[in-house]
Amino acid sequence: MTTTPRAAEPATLLLEDLHGSLADPLLDQMTFLNEVTLRYPDAVSFAPGRPYEGLFEPADVTTALNTYLTHLREEEGLGPAAVRERIFQYGRTKGFINTLVAGQLQADEGITADPEAIVVTAGAQEAMLLVLRALCADPRDVLLVASPCYVGITGAARLLGVTVVPVPEAPGGGLDPEAVAAAVREQRAAGRRPRACYLVPDFANPSGASLPVPARRRLLDVAAETGLLLIEDDPYGFFALDGRSRPTLKALDTAHRVIHIGSYAKTCFPGARIGYVIADQRVAGPAGTTLLADELAKLKSMTTVNTSALGQAVVGGMLLQAGLRLRDANKAVGAFYADNLRTLLAELAAAFPPAGRERHGVCWNLPEGGFFVVVSVPFTADEPAMERCAREHGVLWTPMAGFYPAGGGERLLRLSCSYLTPDRIRDGVRRLAAFAAAEADREPAPAN
Amino acid sequence: MTTTPRAAEPATLLLEDLHGSLADPLLDQMTFLNEVTLRYPDAVSFAPGRPYEGLFEPADVTTALNTYLTHLREEEGLGPAAVRERIFQYGRTKGFINTLVAGQLQADEGITADPEAIVVTAGAQEAMLLVLRALCADPRDVLLVASPCYVGITGAARLLGVTVVPVPEAPGGGLDPEAVAAAVREQRAAGRRPRACYLVPDFANPSGASLPVPARRRLLDVAAETGLLLIEDDPYGFFALDGRSRPTLKALDTAHRVIHIGSYAKTCFPGARIGYVIADQRVAGPAGTTLLADELAKLKSMTTVNTSALGQAVVGGMLLQAGLRLRDANKAVGAFYADNLRTLLAELAAAFPPAGRERHGVCWNLPEGGFFVVVSVPFTADEPAMERCAREHGVLWTPMAGFYPAGGGERLLRLSCSYLTPDRIRDGVRRLAAFAAAEADREPAPAN
Repeated sequence: MTTTPRAAEPATLLLEDLHGSLADPLLDQMTFLNEVTLRYPDAVSFAPGRPYEGLFEPADVTTALNTYLTHLREEEGLGPAAVRERIFQYGRTKGFINTLVAGQLQADEGITADPEAIVVTAGAQEAMLLVLRALCADPRDVLLVASPCYVGITGAARLLGVTVVPVPEAPGGGLDPEAVAAAVREQRAAGRRPRACYLVPDFANPSGASLPVPARRRLLDVAAETGLLLIEDDPYGFFALDGRSRPTLKALDTAHRVIHIGSYAKTCFPGARIGYVIADQRVAGPAGTTLLADELAKLKSMTTVNTSALGQAVVGGMLLQAGLRLRDANKAVGAFYADNLRTLLAELAAAFPPAGRERHGVCWNLPEGGFFVVVSVPFTADEPAMERCAREHGVLWTPMAGFYPAGGGERLLRLSCSYLTPDRIRDGVRRLAAFAAAEADREPAPAN
Repeated sequence: MTTTPRAAEPATLLLEDLHGSLADPLLDQMTFLNEVTLRYPDAVSFAPGRPYEGLFEPADVTTALNTYLTHLREEEGLGPAAVRERIFQYGRTKGFINTLVAGQLQADEGITADPEAIVVTAGAQEAMLLVLRALCADPRDVLLVASPCYVGITGAARLLGVTVVPVPEAPGGGLDPEAVAAAVREQRAAGRRPRACYLVPDFANPSGASLPVPARRRLLDVAAETGLLLIEDDPYGFFALDGRSRPTLKALDTAHRVIHIGSYAKTCFPGARIGYVIADQRVAGPAGTTLLADELAKLKSMTTVNTSALGQAVVGGMLLQAGLRLRDANKAVGAFYADNLRTLLAELAAAFPPAGRERHGVCWNLPEGGFFVVVSVPFTADEPAMERCAREHGVLWTPMAGFYPAGGGERLLRLSCSYLTPDRIRDGVRRLAAFAAAEADREPAPAN
């Protein structure tokens, strides 16, 4: 039995009728970058900021899962039915590896977190979405962000219709606490409510910049003085060139001013899609006091219900295998990243010697760790330039302009070195130098 | 080195300053239900609508994962590095098991879907959030929903600030297409834009009702005539009492009017957190035409970036093990659910005989499958009643009122039978009958 619908014209929607976040030019840039990457598979790609997975084997998943299962049986004392339920069933919205996460944060970061103040999320991205949704309730509510800024947080803000106010990073050194204080005052004077300030204190994406420790302490003071919350996102903290850890804002936070977002994408692996947020702020409501984490969990029941039990079990197993000391377990991959970053910086210095700076006009920052270096060039580093560079010189990078919510960065490009071998990095920088020379011939450099 | 922040007063937030979705009374109900369930662990619980996981063993995860790995090597021809990347790395935002999902939908549902029109999501809940966010762009945009309605969609709407317009289900038989047409006209007359209508056509949560096949065809006509999209959510379609499948709206959809949301939580297992959405609508924009699935993927990059590779690999392995015929693979668990539903209906008939209806005042609907039965009682079936029932009679259920966006259902309760043995169901219905008798003594039944 078939019928013909009276109006069988296929439904066509108009993009302009869909949500405004879909018109975000950043999305077009991401699409463009993906497309160019696919079109030039042999190019040296400094574009994606993804971690290196070469130290893993698929069998490691089973080993980690079995470690967690053994833990459930032997440490948590669960019988077969309870183990089965943990792995196969819906779980608690807040997550079930919270105690392991809290133990790892204590061991690695000196952060003392109540497991009940932690929500395990579908990656750090979901944590950003939940935190923004909870905090920004009113059209007057704004989010301050370090600028240039990670696109995950600006994307989540676009999706939720939250206004973002960029606070420029200080030259060479992360966010300036006094600039944050000034931005809070300015926004309040304009009738808006600055709810929080988002930053990546260690080796930020995209700038590579780090916040010096005294500035961290001052930023906490500013937060307390102005009644601001800080949203700290720290995916790269383990990967310092000197192998030494900086205290996170959360480790220094004695007044619950910091909402700390973490990711196991770089320290375990992205395919598990496990992140978390520490939200130990008290929330006072008519029915009493809750933790912000509980409120985030309520919101999470409307985004993903709960975080993959499989992902949690495998990451939980990896945490157990590491004795909750993930920093130690990341020594080998950390050495790989540090070696790559040193190679990148050395090759840039060789390709663009300081003596010739006036001629070639290229300079870059000197990150103390992480995946990213920002290069300043004497030409417009936009998408057409990137496409020319891919086509004619076989090297890919990311234009920085997309990371500036209020414009800027047109002559900056981001290089990521997390996913290449030293040989490829050397080769890539030489190609980049050839491209820069060609651009100089193409378009005479204006005075900087 | 330590410093004392100048203002060390712990941050306390006010609930009234947080987002309005957190004040949703449904959230309080969910919290209450969870809390009562924990407080009465020995009660027979007809409350949670979760699937039965007793047929799984933890080793099945490894088997499924290995099946998928073998598929990658032997069918997709991937080498070790590419396999490693698939499992451990960030993946495509749309997902990577899309072809397997499309094959399963063809084999099980007769749905022909382009894999590129599918987005694999962190459960059906994320799919709902993405679809609502894409479609509802303007304060005038409203979502029609079958009422009573699954709380996942109303929750996502609250989180996004989308207005929901309930369309009552017809007595005993799902949504009335003419009522949908009338609601569209009414909303348009009031200056609003009805963008889509959400429904669960098979054995709905919470009502258990199904849409008869002629009504499905008529609803598709109504959608075409009124320019409405239908959001079809079909987690229970495999679990008909008679074992026969009804055509989904998507299988009947010749004009791309249906956005089809699916879940592997009931047909594989919830712990994988894998759902999907078929969004094969064309979207016309200034740069050309895309698929709605591509637009949803852009939004997904702002919610969870991509869906757990582990979860996708394990569900992919289960689909392969089933030869993409998941309906067949679900025969045993389907028989378990059907047996439970028959037991529940028979026990209700025994405990509340038709002859005594006038005295006991209890009746219920007769779902053709699925997990849920709605019972009408001659007393207010609210949270205090549920708590009394748990405390004094050791049986739990769900008040229906929370499922009615515009109020109603005060004397209705939902029983779920998916997670109990027939013995427990028998016991539970007897306890429920004792509770109903006690309530009748407590508060004389008013005329119905």
